[in-house]
Amino acid sequence: MSITDDVIDAARRARVAGRDLALATRATKDQALHSMADALLARESDVLAANADDVSRAEDGGTPANIIDRLRLTPERIAGMAQGLRDVAGLPDPVGEVVRGGVLANGLELREVRVPFGVVGMIYEARPNVTADAAGICLKSGNAVLLRGSSSARSSNAAIVDVLRGAVTTVGLPADVVQLVPGDTHESVKALMRARGHVDVLIPRGGASLIQSVVEESTVPVIETGVGNCHVYVDAAADLDKALAIVVNAKTHRTSVCNAAESLLVHESVAEAFLPRVVAALQEAGVTLHGDQAFGAYDGVVAATDEDWATEYLSLDIAARVVPDLDTALEHIRRWSSQHSDAIVTEDQAAARRFVAEVDSAGVLVNASTRFTDGGEFGFGAEIGISTQKLHARGPMGLTEMTSTKYVVIGDGHVR
Amino acid sequence: MSITDDVIDAARRARVAGRDLALATRATKDQALHSMADALLARESDVLAANADDVSRAEDGGTPANIIDRLRLTPERIAGMAQGLRDVAGLPDPVGEVVRGGVLANGLELREVRVPFGVVGMIYEARPNVTADAAGICLKSGNAVLLRGSSSARSSNAAIVDVLRGAVTTVGLPADVVQLVPGDTHESVKALMRARGHVDVLIPRGGASLIQSVVEESTVPVIETGVGNCHVYVDAAADLDKALAIVVNAKTHRTSVCNAAESLLVHESVAEAFLPRVVAALQEAGVTLHGDQAFGAYDGVVAATDEDWATEYLSLDIAARVVPDLDTALEHIRRWSSQHSDAIVTEDQAAARRFVAEVDSAGVLVNASTRFTDGGEFGFGAEIGISTQKLHARGPMGLTEMTSTKYVVIGDGHVR
Repeated sequence: MSITDDVIDAARRARVAGRDLALATRATKDQALHSMADALLARESDVLAANADDVSRAEDGGTPANIIDRLRLTPERIAGMAQGLRDVAGLPDPVGEVVRGGVLANGLELREVRVPFGVVGMIYEARPNVTADAAGICLKSGNAVLLRGSSSARSSNAAIVDVLRGAVTTVGLPADVVQLVPGDTHESVKALMRARGHVDVLIPRGGASLIQSVVEESTVPVIETGVGNCHVYVDAAADLDKALAIVVNAKTHRTSVCNAAESLLVHESVAEAFLPRVVAALQEAGVTLHGDQAFGAYDGVVAATDEDWATEYLSLDIAARVVPDLDTALEHIRRWSSQHSDAIVTEDQAAARRFVAEVDSAGVLVNASTRFTDGGEFGFGAEIGISTQKLHARGPMGLTEMTSTKYVVIGDGHVR
Repeated sequence: MSITDDVIDAARRARVAGRDLALATRATKDQALHSMADALLARESDVLAANADDVSRAEDGGTPANIIDRLRLTPERIAGMAQGLRDVAGLPDPVGEVVRGGVLANGLELREVRVPFGVVGMIYEARPNVTADAAGICLKSGNAVLLRGSSSARSSNAAIVDVLRGAVTTVGLPADVVQLVPGDTHESVKALMRARGHVDVLIPRGGASLIQSVVEESTVPVIETGVGNCHVYVDAAADLDKALAIVVNAKTHRTSVCNAAESLLVHESVAEAFLPRVVAALQEAGVTLHGDQAFGAYDGVVAATDEDWATEYLSLDIAARVVPDLDTALEHIRRWSSQHSDAIVTEDQAAARRFVAEVDSAGVLVNASTRFTDGGEFGFGAEIGISTQKLHARGPMGLTEMTSTKYVVIGDGHVR
């Protein structure tokens, strides 16, 4: 059999297993999640041994230390994965929820009801903990999952999936609700992307180039996640203390995440008061500013090019520009934002109202750090990614976003 | 400029015009819709003259009479288009609706708010009335629209769009919220399908081959619509009078539509009582049955092949099979249904419950005709198509389904 056949075959098995899972009660699914958590802890040494293989292979290949850190599992990280699964068990079951319903004029009862997608494909990079997180969220939302992690984590992922598959069978669910995508080559990813009809939705999680290639090559419907060129705009009517705290937090709280700020816009009427403070505070936190002419007047500020306005640094760098008015700020954001999260700092109700109305991003924030666009912060309890597309789901995706709906129509011999 | 450049240019103008439309109040949009209706009536003769060109070209080309009938406009059909626009004006505005919201533990106010997609592309066949319907629904939902009808209706569509563009400008909206896709070749359709980033969503409406080609070639996210291989299953516990009425209605009420029944399954325990009645009633209505061995015992029934189980006839034909039990009926539907609409006729609560749980179709009906899966019947007021995909929208799509959402987060200097 070719790799393509193997992948289609795995998807077929996922389809069959998914049918049982779609009909499973919440009680069974929660038992499965706790059983998965228990098994991860019980088989910690197996998982750590497999992970040690991946880490030593990465070290031999000269992988940078920060990537190896993301790859490495520890007893604490495994405990974190187990706790994540228990947290998902504690969340409400989205399946079966009646989204809307009523009785039509002719007496027909109409209900729109949440149902699982069926088979979900996940393509992701590095961190092996995503394997357990994604398996847990998919299981709770009633979806069979095909997992395709990066080849650098293949031993870890195989060990984790082996543990999870064993665990789900202890509550009577088929092991095939959680599967690794067979094969380790681009061919197998390609087969997954072309498995339209066998796979209902594909979720890529990782860097911009991974997501771009999935979006372009996939015939399976894709939910795009996670590229964030996020802006903070400090308005003429900003409280500059709040502005300073928000800019520093949005840039430096965690730099490698998609909701970190990458660009700072400052209204010229507050530039004189705000620029010295924000430049000093950012530089003290180790940030390199890539500034326009106004920012360029400060020591250590690098001259910005158009490329800076477009860049998702994911590092201690920020592009910075002084704008003459709110219109220019909105225009800048329209042109350069990746439509993930953009914030305004202002005490002016009219400015806030315009910003909220005109900025077309998944998260639009007023007087709050862009870091708040997050499933955990939003109270979703679990997050499989942050969608930056407009179809189906936008912003943080929790269990609800991992479902579709169907219409149930109950009559008593009704005809048209 | 190449056709591709022309299409991208049109999409860019749609993007700019769409921004004004996204911010327009309901009052302005409803005025625009009434103005569009008024203008269609006032310029009826221009539209009829353009349509006469299309009809005579079609006649010269030897187009079948039923296709020409779909293409032909009359004063009544134009009045119907105008009334359709006024009906959309009467519907609530989906834009700005707060889907969910609350205050987070840290005091942040969080609201998920409905927003337009931005730019919608429509690719559709024959009937020129779709041009006005789609323009109205897109305008009300705040979306600029790029319309690509069939070349057989090009004069009619150009005349209608010219009228509508003039009408929207009378209320101060930009004409470019409604545009025909430039060009008349496959190249221009292809450019539309590849305009990712410029076009937010593409909705193909038409036959299976049109939809299939859009789904496969498009890099713009697609909402699949309208292929319906719909089933009626007459259960062991069916009320046979209700079953007869439902089967005849679902098959013959209107044959050319996607929610018409194409397959009939009958439980063997009621076959002896039901088959003579249903065969006679369907044949009296002019239906040709394509039956299995049990149905084949009746005069005039043609032997069915696997191809019949898979076929969306859209004509006075139905595939018919006797099944030994509910499991076999479910298995048959799983294998052959296009997951549009499938119905069970039964008085048995357990059978109905299993059917509703296990049939994974956009519409699942109990004791009701498949013909009820329809935006009008569901009370949506307007319908742009019936989605048979699981992402974003499933089943009839009204104004709500033509929107995305964004998260608005209001703080007072909040940082993480």
